[in-house]
Amino acid sequence: MVIGVLGGGQLGRMLALAGIPLGHRFVFLDPAEDAVSADVGRHVRGEYTDPDAIDRFLSGVDVVTFEFENIPPAALDLLAARAAVPLRPGVDALRTGQDRLFEKTLFREVGLEVPDFRVAESPESLHTAVAEIGTPCVVKSRRMGYDGKGQAVLRSPADVTRAWDQIRPTAPGVIVEAFVPFRRELSVIAVRSASGRFEAYPLAQNRHEGGILRRSIAPAPDVSSELQATASAHAKAIMERLAYVGVLAIEFFDVGGRLLGNEMAPRVHNSGHWTIEASECSQFENHVRAIAGMPLGSTSSRPAAMINLIGRPIENALGVLDIAGAHLHWYGKEPRAGRKVGHVTIVGADATATADDLAAKLGLDR
Amino acid sequence: MVIGVLGGGQLGRMLALAGIPLGHRFVFLDPAEDAVSADVGRHVRGEYTDPDAIDRFLSGVDVVTFEFENIPPAALDLLAARAAVPLRPGVDALRTGQDRLFEKTLFREVGLEVPDFRVAESPESLHTAVAEIGTPCVVKSRRMGYDGKGQAVLRSPADVTRAWDQIRPTAPGVIVEAFVPFRRELSVIAVRSASGRFEAYPLAQNRHEGGILRRSIAPAPDVSSELQATASAHAKAIMERLAYVGVLAIEFFDVGGRLLGNEMAPRVHNSGHWTIEASECSQFENHVRAIAGMPLGSTSSRPAAMINLIGRPIENALGVLDIAGAHLHWYGKEPRAGRKVGHVTIVGADATATADDLAAKLGLDR
Repeated sequence: MVIGVLGGGQLGRMLALAGIPLGHRFVFLDPAEDAVSADVGRHVRGEYTDPDAIDRFLSGVDVVTFEFENIPPAALDLLAARAAVPLRPGVDALRTGQDRLFEKTLFREVGLEVPDFRVAESPESLHTAVAEIGTPCVVKSRRMGYDGKGQAVLRSPADVTRAWDQIRPTAPGVIVEAFVPFRRELSVIAVRSASGRFEAYPLAQNRHEGGILRRSIAPAPDVSSELQATASAHAKAIMERLAYVGVLAIEFFDVGGRLLGNEMAPRVHNSGHWTIEASECSQFENHVRAIAGMPLGSTSSRPAAMINLIGRPIENALGVLDIAGAHLHWYGKEPRAGRKVGHVTIVGADATATADDLAAKLGLDR
Repeated sequence: MVIGVLGGGQLGRMLALAGIPLGHRFVFLDPAEDAVSADVGRHVRGEYTDPDAIDRFLSGVDVVTFEFENIPPAALDLLAARAAVPLRPGVDALRTGQDRLFEKTLFREVGLEVPDFRVAESPESLHTAVAEIGTPCVVKSRRMGYDGKGQAVLRSPADVTRAWDQIRPTAPGVIVEAFVPFRRELSVIAVRSASGRFEAYPLAQNRHEGGILRRSIAPAPDVSSELQATASAHAKAIMERLAYVGVLAIEFFDVGGRLLGNEMAPRVHNSGHWTIEASECSQFENHVRAIAGMPLGSTSSRPAAMINLIGRPIENALGVLDIAGAHLHWYGKEPRAGRKVGHVTIVGADATATADDLAAKLGLDR
């Protein structure tokens, strides 16, 4: 099968690395000249809204998926008009994942609580919203946010104008969330097949700094089987509601053992990279299996820790290769500040401790 | 680093799948239009002896390796004349691996016994050789044999002419080996780094039919630590003798607990495919690490079984995906009788039993 991927970054690259052994080939649409997926498939260079590029991209493709959710609506319209092939996970999932209001609405519909929130379309309505929610609170662009971009914490109502100017939200504006004193962030990676089969991986515990994921450990410590089951049930309900096919990630706040929904990503997710080595079938292989109409693989997993490599040259990460059991994934990108350029996975019962040692020794968390 | 590979079949493909996450890119020289490594790198289509193709292949390449040993000497001469980059494992390893006489000579030099043998260059000298060795015996072309091709078993001296006509050996003729009543075939996959570090994987036990590898299980059952150490020591001695850099495979006959050397392959090997899932660092990643001057990865391994998929269409192998813990590797080749088109790996303490069940259920051994 030929799989078309919107976006040609590291997620597309890892999808292909997992899907090629299943007999698939990959085509990537990405405007970047140096799209790193070009190493593992055909790269069509063009804008997502360029009809000509879309046509070249679709040529010979059997199914279309995406590696980022901020796909312009005009591109989706073009795809819908031209593609006789399925888009998986699908337009509903994509539109939901593109807008924090839609996400939260869906979360509530399936019984997943979220922090109290209001929407605002202007500095004026943001003032009102902040007054209602109270401070401290978090203002987030409804659309196009990632890696902490498009967010601001408000300590007092006086911060509203600064926050608005900092975020500079495009339509449809922002969302204001009550500040939740959460204990930790957890995420679940789940997959649903074309025939409706569902599987979830063990919950991961994630640590962010500066809005960027730094570390994930899985299974998250101190997770009861009830908590795992609750997270899985939420994912299942959301996926059924969206007639979802593929991998979905949901980030939760763990507030004293209660899960609140933070956000979802309708795609493979950074907090599931550890599944490459630690799971019988990785999130990447399972996404490919699902969208290709194949049966799902087992999500049975060993303990693992994942460290993101951010904005560093490869020379600075090669020390990883000296550590038995540490697996380097380099994405082939030019290092820039704040840019994810690779990750390291460690598998085994002492993965978390080994990751701590490794990160300290090689300065990987910097 | 850009890694050039002579040959663009499934071994090159799996080298790239393992090496791309380390930040490398791959270029393949292969005369075949449909070389399956083209999915994971730049494919230069051309004969190995075509100076123009060699030049296009070498452009931008930092190190050259190969995925098959039957590279024409003229191609090696061309490479030596043009390449300012290292060929790894190297010409000595390649010339040795190309000729059964050189292999056996080297085996004996490092103290690895081999079945009694004679060389022959003509039907007449083959008569003499067979008379000296006795029947039954095995006649093998010294060069260009693989997957059982270029071999014949002689039950009586009267079979000499038939065997010669069947093999139709090119220069420098054939080798006649005493028939060894071996208990099983074992193989060791070992790797040596550019700085001389050595690692070996646990011995695999291999089952051939019709001269083609069907199954490997690893670690081979009933292998004492002494036997493992002996196999590793032979590999180490051979690699040091050849100043070897990369992965080497050696096949042994186990004759009542005594190892006799059968043959070597100066490359990644079918009997090491199980290392992709079962070892901390696979044979493919370790070969890439070695030739790229990186430190070796751990060969620590879980038990595994590997089943070759031979000459079947993919539809006929997809049932594998329904089995938890079974990993499909499809090479993207057109199925033809006797052609290796993929393999399946099963990991875990009950891998061998699961492989038996799977093979029976899906008819994978046929």
